[in-house]
Amino acid sequence: MGSGCTAIINARIYCVDASFQVYNPGSIVFRDGLITAVGPCESVEVPADADIIDGAGRLAVLPGLVDAHCHASLLKGFSENAQLMQWLPEYQREHQALRAEDAFYACLVTYMEALKGGTTTVLDMYRFMHEGHRAAELLGLRVDLVPYAADNPTKRFFETLETTEQALRDLHGLRDDRTRAWVGLEHITYCSEGMFRAARDLADRYGVSIHTHTSEQREEVDVVVELFCDRPVHKFNDWGILKPGSLLAHCVWLDAAEIQVLADTGTGVAHCPVSNMKLASGPAPLASMQAAGIPLGLGSDGGISNNAVSMWESMKSGSLLQKVTHLDATRVSAQEALTLATLGGAQVLGRDAQIGSLEVGKQADLITVDLWQPHLMPLHEAEGHDPVLWNLVFAGRASDVRDAWVQGEQLLAQGRLTRVDESALLEEIHAATAAFLARRREFAAIPMV
Amino acid sequence: MGSGCTAIINARIYCVDASFQVYNPGSIVFRDGLITAVGPCESVEVPADADIIDGAGRLAVLPGLVDAHCHASLLKGFSENAQLMQWLPEYQREHQALRAEDAFYACLVTYMEALKGGTTTVLDMYRFMHEGHRAAELLGLRVDLVPYAADNPTKRFFETLETTEQALRDLHGLRDDRTRAWVGLEHITYCSEGMFRAARDLADRYGVSIHTHTSEQREEVDVVVELFCDRPVHKFNDWGILKPGSLLAHCVWLDAAEIQVLADTGTGVAHCPVSNMKLASGPAPLASMQAAGIPLGLGSDGGISNNAVSMWESMKSGSLLQKVTHLDATRVSAQEALTLATLGGAQVLGRDAQIGSLEVGKQADLITVDLWQPHLMPLHEAEGHDPVLWNLVFAGRASDVRDAWVQGEQLLAQGRLTRVDESALLEEIHAATAAFLARRREFAAIPMV
Repeated sequence: MGSGCTAIINARIYCVDASFQVYNPGSIVFRDGLITAVGPCESVEVPADADIIDGAGRLAVLPGLVDAHCHASLLKGFSENAQLMQWLPEYQREHQALRAEDAFYACLVTYMEALKGGTTTVLDMYRFMHEGHRAAELLGLRVDLVPYAADNPTKRFFETLETTEQALRDLHGLRDDRTRAWVGLEHITYCSEGMFRAARDLADRYGVSIHTHTSEQREEVDVVVELFCDRPVHKFNDWGILKPGSLLAHCVWLDAAEIQVLADTGTGVAHCPVSNMKLASGPAPLASMQAAGIPLGLGSDGGISNNAVSMWESMKSGSLLQKVTHLDATRVSAQEALTLATLGGAQVLGRDAQIGSLEVGKQADLITVDLWQPHLMPLHEAEGHDPVLWNLVFAGRASDVRDAWVQGEQLLAQGRLTRVDESALLEEIHAATAAFLARRREFAAIPMV
Repeated sequence: MGSGCTAIINARIYCVDASFQVYNPGSIVFRDGLITAVGPCESVEVPADADIIDGAGRLAVLPGLVDAHCHASLLKGFSENAQLMQWLPEYQREHQALRAEDAFYACLVTYMEALKGGTTTVLDMYRFMHEGHRAAELLGLRVDLVPYAADNPTKRFFETLETTEQALRDLHGLRDDRTRAWVGLEHITYCSEGMFRAARDLADRYGVSIHTHTSEQREEVDVVVELFCDRPVHKFNDWGILKPGSLLAHCVWLDAAEIQVLADTGTGVAHCPVSNMKLASGPAPLASMQAAGIPLGLGSDGGISNNAVSMWESMKSGSLLQKVTHLDATRVSAQEALTLATLGGAQVLGRDAQIGSLEVGKQADLITVDLWQPHLMPLHEAEGHDPVLWNLVFAGRASDVRDAWVQGEQLLAQGRLTRVDESALLEEIHAATAAFLARRREFAAIPMV
């Protein structure tokens, strides 16, 4: 829980609430993990016992960023120059070799990158999720842990519904809800219909949500249609996994009927623009999904296909990709991009009652950004719009994040993680990766079926 | 000129020469501004008088990055959510209000951002170019200064061929060739045919090159075709401005015949992927231009349309845009992207005999990148390729640049500019921008003709 009372004063505060309130200069106060006041400086009373951070007009305060779809990995940079179907076999060599200790370090290095860049909540679809919990506990950030599960006989190295259930039992709701667990299904072609249906029952039994990937690449949808004589979203609907709280990653190649099904069922989508570009998957139909009312968040998809775990890049690229695809420069404004990366992400993770915006009563998950740098100048007002917001989204970088709090606990201070010795952890990660790579060499890539 | 002798040892050295040599661990030695040795650690002798930087396996060394098309600006974040044709009138309000002192600060903040991100050479198309020189001299980096000139009566605030000639006389070849000047033409619709022809003569007389923009947006080409009954590249050819050394920015909407003309005349192109996405211009035909043998560099296009002045972003986005446009993940490898941002840029600026790659006899324009960070892990070898190179291009950021040298002079050390007090300059820039904005309010946007 929180640590006393903190007030950030004289800052540019982007609340990212329903009316996109901005206070400049503004102040925000949080106590015992909860936001107790936010507003213009002159109307926010700073408690006598507060630790005060004076932004001096040079700090922005934003809700902590939410990465709504990520895969931890020790092997970024290893599966390169490849389309999804060529990329997957190489990626699966990671999973054949992966052991719990490797998963711990993969989660650790991924969450370190995320948190240092202002991402305070990560949905991580990976394996050995007790290790994900351990890594997140070490650093302090929120994680939504989604076991990568599959029952196709050729994919025996993934998690099962039994290991998933163990994760739900052991991990869900831990650390004051900072760690939560989901039911995860790797992919429609990796999991049987029976597994999908059993997954739905399991999720219902534990009151948790379901997350899977779909429709990332055109050729992938073609394979699904050939196998199932229907498009993937319709199959998911038949099997009962689409509902409010369920979350699908990618959704690049949806047709209009599928978009309608997602909207009708209240299913969320995690849009991963950088990965969709890097793997040459294509541009997702963002405007159509928005128009249909589908809850939308942004994901990095993790280092293995991005290669960065940066929501700053996802915001900018998510906007640029829509603009260039539709030759329409008005698509995805800075405000929309920031909303997708904060409140939108919180919504698709079912956490928006607690986080995603800076509002009284919400958890104090927030970050400061150091604006006093050449690449974020100017800090002046324009007539009619806010240049700083545009520059944050289109010139801001993960390294501009100065401080981060989760539930009022400061996890990043002046760019350094507070709970750990970063340098010592990097030494550990470096050594563990060498050992993992040596082991991985014994495995061959599994050809795709 | 250089400052004695420096040796960087135990580093990952990316030479970006014709054979894309990589030394790991490697060493590089430079003395009096020139590279005197580069190779594997064991074969490079470190002079007794060298200042030694031990990379300890945790530093990469790259050629300094080259931004082949940039516009300085005080007003990033001010011309937003707009397509080129809507964006230009707002941008022109900057130019109506601009005075020499404003231009100095615009250049200063832009070059500070560039240099801190490892860009050691910037081609800047802007105004009051003596001020560009002054800003570059203060920081130390190389600049190719291109006066924004036009003779259309509605564009009286741009430079003229007379002011351009003065810039050529005063600035070209200064500071040991760190400052050079070009003949610049704003745009085919802003300049008369007579001005283009006179510009060619002027460039010939001073032995300098010509730079202009073209074919950035589809609607722009339509306007040109309507006005001139021909496509812009053919008009340029008629007017004699296409030749080796000439450089055109953007070139998004070229047809096959225009690509052939550029190739036949040896004209270079500055590709600006982030700006092309942000202004919804479209994806340039990079592969066709490469196949035709057109010399190619990468540009940021400056803060006004990007909003970042980061070649790291240009490398990543330049690759991503091609991959997603052609649904081909093998387009623009990390090696190609890094080559475009270094040697390619040096080539289109006519500087490749001196800079752009790390080779004995070339100028010591180089940067180090701190690899010992979670987002650039792992640092291990893969079978068959180099993960670090992929992660540099796809996860590297401007803020990862630790040191930068130009002509052997260290201009950035541990992330801080060496010649100036950054914080004091930011105060000056901040105040000057406020004054400029107050003046700018007196001008109305000029409607496009």
